[in-house]
Amino acid sequence: MATSLLLNPNPKFFPTNHNRLFVPRRNPSISTVRCSLGSRNPRPEYIPNRIPDPNYVRIFDTTLRDGEQSPGATMTSSEKLVIARQLSRLGVDIIEAGFPASSQDDLEAVRLIAREVGNGPANGDGSVHVPVICGLARCNERDIEAAWEGVRCARLPRIHTFIATSEIHMQYKLRKSREEVVRIARENVAFARRLGCVDIEFSPEDAGRSDPEFLYLILEEVIKAGATTVNIPDTVGYTLPKEFGKLIADIKANTRGIDNVIISTHCQNDLGNASANTVAGADAGARQLEVTVNGIGERAGNASLEEVVLAIETRGKDILGGLYTGINTKHIMMSSKMVAEYTGLHVQPHKAIVGANAFAHESGIHQDGMLKHKGTYEIISPEDIGLTRSNESGIVLGKLSGRHALRSQLLELGYDINGKDLDDVFRRFKEVAEKKKRVSDDDLEALITDQIFQPQVIWSLGDLQVTCGTLGLSTATVKLIGTDGGEHVECSVGTGPVDAAYKAIDRIVKVPVTLLEYSMSAVTEGIDAISTTRVVIRGDDVLESTHAQTGRNVNRTYSGTGAGMDIVVSSVRAYVSALNKMLGFRRNVPTEKTAAETSQGSA
Amino acid sequence: MATSLLLNPNPKFFPTNHNRLFVPRRNPSISTVRCSLGSRNPRPEYIPNRIPDPNYVRIFDTTLRDGEQSPGATMTSSEKLVIARQLSRLGVDIIEAGFPASSQDDLEAVRLIAREVGNGPANGDGSVHVPVICGLARCNERDIEAAWEGVRCARLPRIHTFIATSEIHMQYKLRKSREEVVRIARENVAFARRLGCVDIEFSPEDAGRSDPEFLYLILEEVIKAGATTVNIPDTVGYTLPKEFGKLIADIKANTRGIDNVIISTHCQNDLGNASANTVAGADAGARQLEVTVNGIGERAGNASLEEVVLAIETRGKDILGGLYTGINTKHIMMSSKMVAEYTGLHVQPHKAIVGANAFAHESGIHQDGMLKHKGTYEIISPEDIGLTRSNESGIVLGKLSGRHALRSQLLELGYDINGKDLDDVFRRFKEVAEKKKRVSDDDLEALITDQIFQPQVIWSLGDLQVTCGTLGLSTATVKLIGTDGGEHVECSVGTGPVDAAYKAIDRIVKVPVTLLEYSMSAVTEGIDAISTTRVVIRGDDVLESTHAQTGRNVNRTYSGTGAGMDIVVSSVRAYVSALNKMLGFRRNVPTEKTAAETSQGSA
Repeated sequence: MATSLLLNPNPKFFPTNHNRLFVPRRNPSISTVRCSLGSRNPRPEYIPNRIPDPNYVRIFDTTLRDGEQSPGATMTSSEKLVIARQLSRLGVDIIEAGFPASSQDDLEAVRLIAREVGNGPANGDGSVHVPVICGLARCNERDIEAAWEGVRCARLPRIHTFIATSEIHMQYKLRKSREEVVRIARENVAFARRLGCVDIEFSPEDAGRSDPEFLYLILEEVIKAGATTVNIPDTVGYTLPKEFGKLIADIKANTRGIDNVIISTHCQNDLGNASANTVAGADAGARQLEVTVNGIGERAGNASLEEVVLAIETRGKDILGGLYTGINTKHIMMSSKMVAEYTGLHVQPHKAIVGANAFAHESGIHQDGMLKHKGTYEIISPEDIGLTRSNESGIVLGKLSGRHALRSQLLELGYDINGKDLDDVFRRFKEVAEKKKRVSDDDLEALITDQIFQPQVIWSLGDLQVTCGTLGLSTATVKLIGTDGGEHVECSVGTGPVDAAYKAIDRIVKVPVTLLEYSMSAVTEGIDAISTTRVVIRGDDVLESTHAQTGRNVNRTYSGTGAGMDIVVSSVRAYVSALNKMLGFRRNVPTEKTAAETSQGSA
Repeated sequence: MATSLLLNPNPKFFPTNHNRLFVPRRNPSISTVRCSLGSRNPRPEYIPNRIPDPNYVRIFDTTLRDGEQSPGATMTSSEKLVIARQLSRLGVDIIEAGFPASSQDDLEAVRLIAREVGNGPANGDGSVHVPVICGLARCNERDIEAAWEGVRCARLPRIHTFIATSEIHMQYKLRKSREEVVRIARENVAFARRLGCVDIEFSPEDAGRSDPEFLYLILEEVIKAGATTVNIPDTVGYTLPKEFGKLIADIKANTRGIDNVIISTHCQNDLGNASANTVAGADAGARQLEVTVNGIGERAGNASLEEVVLAIETRGKDILGGLYTGINTKHIMMSSKMVAEYTGLHVQPHKAIVGANAFAHESGIHQDGMLKHKGTYEIISPEDIGLTRSNESGIVLGKLSGRHALRSQLLELGYDINGKDLDDVFRRFKEVAEKKKRVSDDDLEALITDQIFQPQVIWSLGDLQVTCGTLGLSTATVKLIGTDGGEHVECSVGTGPVDAAYKAIDRIVKVPVTLLEYSMSAVTEGIDAISTTRVVIRGDDVLESTHAQTGRNVNRTYSGTGAGMDIVVSSVRAYVSALNKMLGFRRNVPTEKTAAETSQGSA
């Protein structure tokens, strides 16, 4: 299966295999054309503490670190790698790939991304962008060593270390004085520098509620110790734009040495202001913005990459004094879909930029050609973010389509798939085409996800047989195939077909789990659509990792997806996929636990 | 069924029947306790063009008008009435109940809300708040007459009329000169006044992209003609907070007569800044804020009520100079759930304030008691928005629970249900309790929605029998019962169980529809959860209404929900519910079509 290839360290595999969007989507010219501002202003050379063009704003994406910390958003290393590649293609300047001290899995994922994506170009479109790969670390030596271990093989490695500076955090979480906090910050930045890292970011956690005078002081100290970027987090999403902008301006005006480093923002969304605060920060002088795709993250999430980038794209020239980013907005839609898919965190229909309704004015037969001028209600054109309508290329696959036609269409969609993977997808495609006249691009993407981007296979679905309805007892018979090829058949009754099938699976797999979430949606219009099911489970035995901010060990949760034309079949596939993801994760190695318990561990 | 009661004009039915949250939830004291700021500052007396307390900010909710315009969000009159009651309970100052000229259905829904909710108090908690009921109208006499017809029986009726003022809209949509636009605005405000309406709101559409000098002029003219509120819409969600705040401040500084009226904001969310822009507007002098519950609305939606209110609640005192609203935040969570349910527009897990993860820090066994101080990562307490955990009251219903216990628990949840409705819910409850040890509050709410808050019943599900799986042809047999009590049985094969069942239903109902969306989620944790299915359909024959901004006739879409422990059964219930909703809507009366075609119809 795909996973083993994805994890294969041999770099020659990577440019051509399972590289979503490796080939240009639809129009061969798209991927070489930068979005308008990007093309007019080429990305300046990367120097850690200085940006040659004062109007250029760096985009720091923390989807893989802060985003992945969301409940249920746990991703496998291969999923993280695929997303990191997409972020590179999108033109993100810095990818925060994880928090290596949290678990052995996280360390390995960061190392994999540093090695592969951090040594690009593997974009396949002739562009030469190599993103900085960053690892998070609390202010202690073990965390910083783990972060360095994760990122050091990237061409541009960065360590991001943080300690809280608000009174409430210092008093209740750290139980440390201001002086101690300054000393710990300074020593740990210096330690990172001694390890050989020349690109060091420091964050005073909960800066939004910290005493500004104390911020000027601690930032001055870490700059002296070697920090090259200072990031100002509004950790609890408490500030309003005018206030956050003023904080950035005040730091810029009052911190000694600040002109020798980059100021960054990191805004949480608890009051719904994260994106506006971030743009206000840029307006006030920040030249790095920390964001996540779809705005995911703990609680109400972070500033959303697409909102921040499009605000700068749309209003940069007139209201923001010429600011611009290096993001190729044409890849936004695909990045959004991919992150939603792998994290299980869907965006609402009315999500700005990437929601299903964001460009849907109304339904109805009178729509076409009625808008006398597109700009009346549209400030961004859908094509700018890579939104294309299914099958607008005019190619329709059906049951007579062969392997070659399928491969061509998949290439159009950005999937370069060969060999056994192509055989598997072709088999699934034929099953669908037998039942459905037109197989749309959305159908194909659902099948690809279901077939290729799956965790390591421990159990796979053989057969399923179900009887249900209002008249009798729901009964399911399930055949699962184990890694040894052995077939296991069990049956169970249940309150409904899914309950019955899941109970039958539990009888085979015998690992206690709790089903936390279950959802399903049809990927295309029409009654004969393919449905995709997502489940989130939690293992009832302990599989822990360390939480960055609180320093606590947490029981992670795992999502699984499955697709099929039969909703019971897709439900079973999703459950098996989540079980496989969970079973594939190893337990923490002891060192990380110890790190979490050091005296300054909860920084 | 419930619908007939809900639509029954006899007011004595309303205070006690189907009045969600009519009785206090859990704690009898909650509904009489205002949220902190609200209780310290009682709501000032309502005077259309003046607020006695300069720090009081009015909340104008347009969930039922702008929100309902979203694709698939069409609601029945009874659903709108239930939401309007909830908005009144929430303490909304002005409810925009609809756009009466768009269709006969819309007019009737507005009239119903004006009569019932606009003549409160029916809140049942001793509060005496009576909201203003507002109807939208383009700047033409037919629209304004329809709006007045809709709202006139409210105690505090308001007409809201608008015309576009940006160059792009005047040139391409209206094809009118500035002078003509000013004349039309002035004449129509005066016309509304002559009808007897003393509370008139005027909006220059696309104000965010209009020439400020022109705005000062047209606003001065409408104020002279009798407008009491002037609303400044950022129709395309184009502005940034500092810019929108400046626009409000400039209007306040430069418009003659502005001190005699209320300035209002209406911000769309296309760049993700709607809530921040709205708060910036209040900060700059606006004293009415137009919002929707969950931020729903066309494209990327509107400023979200909960984000705007909580920003003012949390930061009003320190950063916003003492601003406050009359909203009772304890009703926010229930309002959010209700709107999500009736419109089919779900909020994403990381939606600020009301998302499923907004207050979920992390999962895991180490969580309890680990946060040394709640405020470290929490700026709002979940209880403040009415978020309570299922069954925290300690009462657990099971299969031995009787009718009385069920009724008590429903009362706790806010449902005062008797007679046949209680019988129906009790029957469904027993079916669930037979299969499930603990029936949670979320389960009960799903059953209530499925059983009580449904459109007028034209078809109902008798029986269903399904066979499916990977091994054979999915086959469904469906028995539907018509209004005459006649039983109709059909069977069909399909690509999966839902496809088969929907095709069997189509064979019975014989109305051509397109299935646009299909989604499902489990309402509670655990494998034996109740699942809720939502579908959105569009009738393929023409059922039109007029769109407010574009003036076009649109084919509306209809959502349906169904609940059950068997996902196939809940899917079938949802489809039947959507069909019933669609079949229950009447065709437009000819007058509205004509109105849409008048020379100034596309204002």
